[in-house]
Amino acid sequence: MPADLLATPDLLRSVFRRHAAGVAVITARGDAGPVGFTATSLASVSAEPPLLSFGVGTGSSSWPAIEAAGHVGVHILGEHQQELAATFARSGADRFAPPTAWRDGPEGVPVLDGVPAWLVGRVVARVPAGDHRIVIAEVVHGDHTGTGRPLLYHQGRFNRLRD
Amino acid sequence: MPADLLATPDLLRSVFRRHAAGVAVITARGDAGPVGFTATSLASVSAEPPLLSFGVGTGSSSWPAIEAAGHVGVHILGEHQQELAATFARSGADRFAPPTAWRDGPEGVPVLDGVPAWLVGRVVARVPAGDHRIVIAEVVHGDHTGTGRPLLYHQGRFNRLRD
Repeated sequence: MPADLLATPDLLRSVFRRHAAGVAVITARGDAGPVGFTATSLASVSAEPPLLSFGVGTGSSSWPAIEAAGHVGVHILGEHQQELAATFARSGADRFAPPTAWRDGPEGVPVLDGVPAWLVGRVVARVPAGDHRIVIAEVVHGDHTGTGRPLLYHQGRFNRLRD
Repeated sequence: MPADLLATPDLLRSVFRRHAAGVAVITARGDAGPVGFTATSLASVSAEPPLLSFGVGTGSSSWPAIEAAGHVGVHILGEHQQELAATFARSGADRFAPPTAWRDGPEGVPVLDGVPAWLVGRVVARVPAGDHRIVIAEVVHGDHTGTGRPLLYHQGRFNRLRD
């Protein structure tokens, strides 16, 4: 059977393995402390008003906090931050324990240190989309004074820009 | 004034210039012929059912067709396809004229030749998000037999993977 007749999660996964994405960490202040996870779905959505979006699985450990959060933190990871990306993708890890360096940022949102750029967004929608939600947030704070080129993800592993 | 107090479209833009993204071309069958545009917001959303998303500006030339389309085409561009990406980002160009190579694909959707992977999705939602809409589509066809590594976009120009 040709691949174009296989409309399955496998087909989606196989096609997106050929796609490359920048790597971000999303954070929020939960009732039990800071939560966060590594995301490859971050996108800039709208300029006016300034909106961004990302996906989060409703079965993920971060979802209860993201579902309740008024604000979220969005961090662009640098190419030197593979370990940080792995920490925030690892089940059961205390993601905010050392060596993770972070502080309380605007609106009480956990902000990671040493990233090329970060934003705090006010959540304006959580759109149902299968086993995930697409979170839309309006930018209310941020900074981009960090240095470093972005970390990438492709074919199931981290990568970097060539030029 | 520190950057973290400047909650403006400029802040969103400055932060996302540090982000890297894979490059895709979105297509649809419009009443007046095929339409398509270059997108850096493509994301895999849900495995069950298999959903993807991308953003489209409501002021863009492709929007009327995307607004009415039952299905859309999604193409992962290869690192050798910078010209194709530029064509589908250029105002006023006949994007489907030679040297663009394409065919009528499943559901009548225009499918570009020579890409590493492509999908046809059934549109399930067009979510308002400021001056854009987030289109959510369920995968119904696709193939990934093409070769080539992905084209990237960062700091306003095309780039490639290092490793």
